[in-house]
Amino acid sequence: MNLLACSSHTAFFLTLTQHTEKSRIKMRRLGTLCSQSYMCSKYVNVTPISSFVRHRTGESPQLVLPSIRFHLVLIPIRFKVHKLASPLAFTDLPPPVQDGVLIRGDNALPAAKHALSILDGNNRFGIKIPYLLLTNGGGVSESARCHKLSQQLGMKIDPERFIQAHTVLKSVVHKYADLPVLVLGGKGNTLRKVAEGYGFKHVYTTLDILAWNRSVCPLHDHTDEERESVKTADFSKTCFAAIIVFHDPQNWFLDIQVMCDLIQSGGILDGPYQPKHTRKLVDLVFCNPDLVWKSDFDRPRLGQGAFKEAFQGVFKSLTGAPYPYTQFGKPTEATYKFAEQMLRGQLVENSSLDSVLVTNKSNPFVPPQSDNCIFV
Amino acid sequence: MNLLACSSHTAFFLTLTQHTEKSRIKMRRLGTLCSQSYMCSKYVNVTPISSFVRHRTGESPQLVLPSIRFHLVLIPIRFKVHKLASPLAFTDLPPPVQDGVLIRGDNALPAAKHALSILDGNNRFGIKIPYLLLTNGGGVSESARCHKLSQQLGMKIDPERFIQAHTVLKSVVHKYADLPVLVLGGKGNTLRKVAEGYGFKHVYTTLDILAWNRSVCPLHDHTDEERESVKTADFSKTCFAAIIVFHDPQNWFLDIQVMCDLIQSGGILDGPYQPKHTRKLVDLVFCNPDLVWKSDFDRPRLGQGAFKEAFQGVFKSLTGAPYPYTQFGKPTEATYKFAEQMLRGQLVENSSLDSVLVTNKSNPFVPPQSDNCIFV
Repeated sequence: MNLLACSSHTAFFLTLTQHTEKSRIKMRRLGTLCSQSYMCSKYVNVTPISSFVRHRTGESPQLVLPSIRFHLVLIPIRFKVHKLASPLAFTDLPPPVQDGVLIRGDNALPAAKHALSILDGNNRFGIKIPYLLLTNGGGVSESARCHKLSQQLGMKIDPERFIQAHTVLKSVVHKYADLPVLVLGGKGNTLRKVAEGYGFKHVYTTLDILAWNRSVCPLHDHTDEERESVKTADFSKTCFAAIIVFHDPQNWFLDIQVMCDLIQSGGILDGPYQPKHTRKLVDLVFCNPDLVWKSDFDRPRLGQGAFKEAFQGVFKSLTGAPYPYTQFGKPTEATYKFAEQMLRGQLVENSSLDSVLVTNKSNPFVPPQSDNCIFV
Repeated sequence: MNLLACSSHTAFFLTLTQHTEKSRIKMRRLGTLCSQSYMCSKYVNVTPISSFVRHRTGESPQLVLPSIRFHLVLIPIRFKVHKLASPLAFTDLPPPVQDGVLIRGDNALPAAKHALSILDGNNRFGIKIPYLLLTNGGGVSESARCHKLSQQLGMKIDPERFIQAHTVLKSVVHKYADLPVLVLGGKGNTLRKVAEGYGFKHVYTTLDILAWNRSVCPLHDHTDEERESVKTADFSKTCFAAIIVFHDPQNWFLDIQVMCDLIQSGGILDGPYQPKHTRKLVDLVFCNPDLVWKSDFDRPRLGQGAFKEAFQGVFKSLTGAPYPYTQFGKPTEATYKFAEQMLRGQLVENSSLDSVLVTNKSNPFVPPQSDNCIFV
């Protein structure tokens, strides 16, 4: 999880781990595949994909306590110099917080609470410093996640200060609001409701399609929970505009089968396969590029990035080429720009900052100069 | 499904469709990946991977009747010339049989019954001609499949005359009989029993592993049927010698996760990942290369070949390279050699052929000369 906060320094984004050759290769490769989105080193000091950590929701951990980890990410706002007489150095914080850990198991670390309380006004200026918590997790609504997080941290975390992998989709709702979209990931009906909460009006899942015609994926049987989540529709007449992978899919086989069908037939599941250059393009969107993530198992578990690789492996073997897609989530430019907009909103609404800000609140951002930072 | 039979002609294998550039490319690519098996054009007149057809087991079809299709595949045995005065031409058979269709829906085609009755002794020589039915289907035991097939065809199909995708594994049991193997595919416990029937003594599934530690794949929940199939073991101490994909897997996510874990840790699920060049090699075996197959849905469904592509896509993204594997099933040399051995066995046991055979029964095979053929 990333913590985005106002800072006295001009570093735009800071991550606590270093570039590696592997991460650069990964970036280049992903960059080649992305058609509608790209990554930009100006925006992103990328950590190796394989080291990303995401909190596992659900039951209590069994072996190793999972943790929410944040990389301290700063947006540069120049504060008046006299306020910086004895700044609190970031390195004064305990190592777990420096390493990005906010929560271990079900409990927040004291250091995390301390850091957040500083941002929440417990500082020598008595001001609330705008910040965001940014994670590649998801699968539930922002309000549900913040409710649990608030209990763990012992302080209210407002959904307006919280971005999970699929939150950025609010910025593209206008493109698909009135069109059928296929939403992948999550359990049962949960992400349909999240998507509808964002403003998507015609949201379907692969389980809906399987209920319409079991022959779509004859080896998959609905569980009772899955059956209860089904929304009925005639998919022989439904033309999907987009496939949006909100969260890590559980039913890879079913989901990849339906993705391949929809894409090859120009959006209508029951339609004939059409030649590549004549068929209608079905937009494909992923919200989390992480190949693996850290759960309470000893070794990293496969994430949404692995699902993407599996899909592309199959699609390429069927058609000869991978399918172009849009990538959201850390560390993509689109997600950081979305976060920037949310922070701007907090700045504009926060009158207590007027006395300490040098720059214009409507445009407080300056180019990055360094990766080091200090709190105000 | 292929029908392998003794013939008056010297064509070694005949398939009814032609080579295509795509199939040649596919062969070359698979050949690159296969480490312990390879394909040989001398043995295999390969049909395009995407055109393979396999019968769907299970409930009755809903929209389009699925069919068992066979490619007439001949093993050359020279019969005494005077017996061939008025041969029955293959092209005299009705088009459905020429196209490889034995069964449509739940019913055998009359032409299929006629063709098989000729091989079963209803010919001018009154001899039973050795033959095999060869399919890339599977997921149940040979005896269970033959029981159903016998009912459909109205004649007894002996399991000794029937080869499905995983039957060839009988030829490698000696390598793994006393070692733990991970068996993928099928429903519940079915393929564990099939594998044990072949002689594998320590057979486990990914559902066993998930029951041992749910954190292996926290997004997968056992269904009731899956829970009932579980065999208990301590997988922190179990060193797997091989991963064998018997039949099309249903739980791609769980299966790919466990495959990646086992391979990277040298066979022990709970062990640390080890460098590529020092870890113990876990053999990986696939039994069916078909990328897609024809069910009762209008368009081809993803098959075991697609699962392989998904796994390799993920494994390559994790490690930088695909994993070497052994490929069985049509149209691999290994499966055709296995079929040849089974036919040899029938020849040796069939004394009624002595009067019509020119060649020695223990070595009746001669090199292929043509793709055309006729029945005796």
